[in-house]
Amino acid sequence: MEKMIYAGKAKQMWTTADDEILKVVYMDQATALNGKKKDQISGKGILNNHISSLIFEYLTRQGIENHFIKRISDTEELVKKVTILPLEMVTRNVAAGHFTTRFGVEEGKVFETPVEETYFKSDELDDPFMNNSQILALKIATKSEIEKMWDISRKVNSLLTELFKKMDLRLIDFKLEFGKLKDGEIVLADEFSPDNCRLWDMKDNAHMDKDVYRRDLGDLTIVYEEVLKRLEKVLTEDM
Amino acid sequence: MEKMIYAGKAKQMWTTADDEILKVVYMDQATALNGKKKDQISGKGILNNHISSLIFEYLTRQGIENHFIKRISDTEELVKKVTILPLEMVTRNVAAGHFTTRFGVEEGKVFETPVEETYFKSDELDDPFMNNSQILALKIATKSEIEKMWDISRKVNSLLTELFKKMDLRLIDFKLEFGKLKDGEIVLADEFSPDNCRLWDMKDNAHMDKDVYRRDLGDLTIVYEEVLKRLEKVLTEDM
Repeated sequence: MEKMIYAGKAKQMWTTADDEILKVVYMDQATALNGKKKDQISGKGILNNHISSLIFEYLTRQGIENHFIKRISDTEELVKKVTILPLEMVTRNVAAGHFTTRFGVEEGKVFETPVEETYFKSDELDDPFMNNSQILALKIATKSEIEKMWDISRKVNSLLTELFKKMDLRLIDFKLEFGKLKDGEIVLADEFSPDNCRLWDMKDNAHMDKDVYRRDLGDLTIVYEEVLKRLEKVLTEDM
Repeated sequence: MEKMIYAGKAKQMWTTADDEILKVVYMDQATALNGKKKDQISGKGILNNHISSLIFEYLTRQGIENHFIKRISDTEELVKKVTILPLEMVTRNVAAGHFTTRFGVEEGKVFETPVEETYFKSDELDDPFMNNSQILALKIATKSEIEKMWDISRKVNSLLTELFKKMDLRLIDFKLEFGKLKDGEIVLADEFSPDNCRLWDMKDNAHMDKDVYRRDLGDLTIVYEEVLKRLEKVLTEDM
């Protein structure tokens, strides 16, 4: 019997007949401000599932070890069962969002080398920002685990910056999560969609990501559909 | 003519006849919660000046390069003129204060290796916590400057942990600031007193630092006087 083992803000995780495989169900919920803003947006789950599946398939072809197996319906995909490390690994190529208010920097400032930040996944503590010395002292991850996650993050940044460039999009920043397979190997997990990255249109820096929802700039589904359309086009050309 | 060039929460800086030498004047003001709590505490300036002078003299004897020249009165000392780097370097041997609420850790937890944190000195931004990648991206300090500051911080931690142990005090955590001399050399600056460290009594973990004021636990001057008394005693024995 399939059993729901996790209900997040935008996804559910279900068991399957295979102990080592889980089913992800993408929902239509959008949240921002750590859940303080919340809405149902019809069609969002389908878009995120399609976009994330295509990106994970692309990353797999490029040699990035990850949890993704395959998309099985408009809103569902199968993934390898992993133990999620409770850290959000954020990479910033360009200053945007709360980075700008926290440090008094203009949105749009390009970094010579990307900024790398880690947040401790804890709703209770409001996902606090942590440095490596704190992560090690509280035994949340080991030094080699942290290094492995940044190693994969940097490869993903370089691959996806190139991919999005072909779609006339700038990859401003993104958040990755990682999990441990049964054998202890660390692989990329979670999703990659405009929910957890910022994409700006090359020609006018228009927001093509969840900031459209966070900042009430327009219809999220129209924007996500455009990202999916460009992604499908570039991946078809790429084959 | 002596001219005041800086007025902080607890200290003033004045020019002297020598361009490369400044005079520090310790005041009786105590502040907490980034200035939201503020009081005049008669005698505090004298105590901080005496304690910090003795500690800087001790660190000088132990080979730690710093800005301190000499104490010239109960509330004044002379220091080398430096350009202060806008970073607060915090070392934690034991969890205390806002570290505990931020990460849901019990006060008193001993770290196997000290936690090291950097804060950007900015009243406007409320001294935000930063990691190295952010400091480098915003060009606040260079990699070698950061390494030099941690190198000195670690030596200070090891020297003062030993010194305070002889005074039956545990060095829980402390904040250091650094400055650049005319020739670019980075040296320890600011002060070292119970205002910028936590000291717990060995026998009962009683607070022997500014937490007495922050948490309204009693008379700050009685506690600082006790720290000064023990410091004078151990330094006399040490000679």
